[in-house]
Amino acid sequence: MPIITLTTDFGIKDHSVAAVKGAIYTELTSVNIVDISHEVPPFHSTEAAYIIKNAYHNFPKGSIHIVGIDSELTPENKHLAIFLDGHYFICADNGIMSLIAKEIKPEKIVEINIHDAVQTNFTVLDVFVRVAAHIFRGGTLEVIGKPIGQIKQIKNIEPVVLAQKNQLIGHVLYIDNFGNVVTNVTKKELLQMAKGRKVKIKARGIEFEKVYNSYSDAINFNEPKDKRVEDGKKIALFNASGYLELAIYRSNLTTVGGASSLFGLKLMSTININFE
Amino acid sequence: MPIITLTTDFGIKDHSVAAVKGAIYTELTSVNIVDISHEVPPFHSTEAAYIIKNAYHNFPKGSIHIVGIDSELTPENKHLAIFLDGHYFICADNGIMSLIAKEIKPEKIVEINIHDAVQTNFTVLDVFVRVAAHIFRGGTLEVIGKPIGQIKQIKNIEPVVLAQKNQLIGHVLYIDNFGNVVTNVTKKELLQMAKGRKVKIKARGIEFEKVYNSYSDAINFNEPKDKRVEDGKKIALFNASGYLELAIYRSNLTTVGGASSLFGLKLMSTININFE
Amino acid sequence: MPIITLTTDFGIKDHSVAAVKGAIYTELTSVNIVDISHEVPPFHSTEAAYIIKNAYHNFPKGSIHIVGIDSELTPENKHLAIFLDGHYFICADNGIMSLIAKEIKPEKIVEINIHDAVQTNFTVLDVFVRVAAHIFRGGTLEVIGKPIGQIKQIKNIEPVVLAQKNQLIGHVLYIDNFGNVVTNVTKKELLQMAKGRKVKIKARGIEFEKVYNSYSDAINFNEPKDKRVEDGKKIALFNASGYLELAIYRSNLTTVGGASSLFGLKLMSTININFE
Repeated sequence: MPIITLTTDFGIKDHSVAAVKGAIYTELTSVNIVDISHEVPPFHSTEAAYIIKNAYHNFPKGSIHIVGIDSELTPENKHLAIFLDGHYFICADNGIMSLIAKEIKPEKIVEINIHDAVQTNFTVLDVFVRVAAHIFRGGTLEVIGKPIGQIKQIKNIEPVVLAQKNQLIGHVLYIDNFGNVVTNVTKKELLQMAKGRKVKIKARGIEFEKVYNSYSDAINFNEPKDKRVEDGKKIALFNASGYLELAIYRSNLTTVGGASSLFGLKLMSTININFE
Repeated sequence: MPIITLTTDFGIKDHSVAAVKGAIYTELTSVNIVDISHEVPPFHSTEAAYIIKNAYHNFPKGSIHIVGIDSELTPENKHLAIFLDGHYFICADNGIMSLIAKEIKPEKIVEINIHDAVQTNFTVLDVFVRVAAHIFRGGTLEVIGKPIGQIKQIKNIEPVVLAQKNQLIGHVLYIDNFGNVVTNVTKKELLQMAKGRKVKIKARGIEFEKVYNSYSDAINFNEPKDKRVEDGKKIALFNASGYLELAIYRSNLTTVGGASSLFGLKLMSTININFE
Repeated sequence: MPIITLTTDFGIKDHSVAAVKGAIYTELTSVNIVDISHEVPPFHSTEAAYIIKNAYHNFPKGSIHIVGIDSELTPENKHLAIFLDGHYFICADNGIMSLIAKEIKPEKIVEINIHDAVQTNFTVLDVFVRVAAHIFRGGTLEVIGKPIGQIKQIKNIEPVVLAQKNQLIGHVLYIDNFGNVVTNVTKKELLQMAKGRKVKIKARGIEFEKVYNSYSDAINFNEPKDKRVEDGKKIALFNASGYLELAIYRSNLTTVGGASSLFGLKLMSTININFE
């Protein structure tokens, strides 16, 4: 029995998320609904793209992912159902899927066309739930939409490679719960371009000369505890999602502060990576 | 098997919500518990009333809704179990149900009287969970309470109709996750009173001359994208819940701002609706 | 079928919580996962200890509690699986279990040693989920770890009893959703030491001369409503978890304010309790 997940910018105070769940349970009495996130900033398809990319693949194949961000139907914002990597995604065509689709080609994309049968100004509740229930019951995508070839891309999704191949220019893609700064540069891209050369990362004047493989990898546990630099140490690492991340060891936004605040980095801030 | 929903002002950091869920799973091993909201501001029965009204009816008939806001038992705050519109509600008699009961008459109201059997200073955990389990197992309301005829009302729930029938005075009932401002005037009330006349809405000096039926309804998609007013446009609309709402198109509290902050409107702020 | 609960400092915006749930559903298709809290402040094992202590015992015996706070494996931060009071706990050895273990002796503690088989920098996802699935399927703790006798303690967990036995010096252990201040002094400790003597509590110059058994216990409902002191009244009480709490009646952090802000009390602030 497939799982249905929800990712929205509805927040958790309003009735909206519960209304969607109620509608799903009314259609499908026995189904497992899992929240991915409802704290995506309003209309923020880039942050949503990062969240959904890192969450979906942990779920069993056949899961159905409803993504309700910026999903009001307009002539410029179509509705999509996508089958990719064994998972189904129901969302608007606003770039949300481009981070995943950059790495894994969709097997099937349809533009949902059941709107004539549905009067709504609550898209996720009325359109997306109906499509999810259709897929849940084993229906095909062709029944609820017409196949298309392309989806919209998020702007500037790729880091820029300078012609001399000795510099990558990336930017901040996501800031996490600990205030750590995730860039749009993947471990794979960075290592492929480094080809064994030394890496130097610069972000607003802060420099990093080494990229660790985990947070604790940056700490020398052979030194006595009172001598070693630990809490508050700035580090660059490849995070568990395979992205280059600039972090503060054991950061706490209310005490030592987080990387974003301490380094002065925001979403879209530039990150320079030099190879020497 | 009925669903049990939870609406509280407990917040999601403390142990309280989990304690209630644990208690339910201890009573009823196989049950589906769904969160409606735990971010109701402390003791705020009006916001809770709006949330529960817009969430409950999406759930299957027979669902049991536990509403744990301002629920400590005092001589002035009795406990209720209500059957209405095919749904069960367990809550304190503090006005929370009056927004729903204004439109749909309760079929049965009992004042819960099982307190002698329960020693508690955690009402929701000890009393409400027990009542929910009783209903879940098919028990009748009369067994756990004595029938009563009236429930308390929230103050000023209705907009005021001026004698000449050319003005409605409403107020702000709820502010949503996007900062949009929901009034206590329903689409039905407004249209019945308008009788085809022009509508003019005024709130703290801001005027609206048209009420749209959805957010995108306010945008002219025939105009080229760079010419049209879009993000940040102020609009009045009937929202998906059937209430008059004052909104900012694609509002984002951290960027363009939301209607509440931009218009200077708070809970209970006055909204004037004139018919000409 | 055991329930699996999750307590983390991951927050609810990031993908992390959903990733863990997805991983559990991939291992165990039919399982009930319940969130305890994901809003523990980063790395804050004391607040986590209070939350998990007050939540776990409400769940059915046999439940499996994953506690993902400060859980990166280092030479100084081992991973534990504990069986205590009929419940399983999977966590790092950072003091989180000491508040529970102070009152109830663990029946079994093992240091998890399956790390060689797991390549990870997302401990909760890769190690803790695997251990939980092992226990869920009926596996013993000895298979995934080696028995040990001791776990780490949180510092200053116990209130200090002055030699003359006429004063207890406690501190603030937790601040709840209503801004109320929970101390590390239990009802049992206080009553045992009081032996019928009068109790006087002092915290930053604020004095309390009576300890109530509930919030409403502090209000005289025989007085007319407009005469009695009610909202905003400062009270000391034994809370539903059995701890001494300093509170504001019907506190609301955005209106009357909460005890923590009004009394100027923070985590670890000193509370003096005198017996006369």
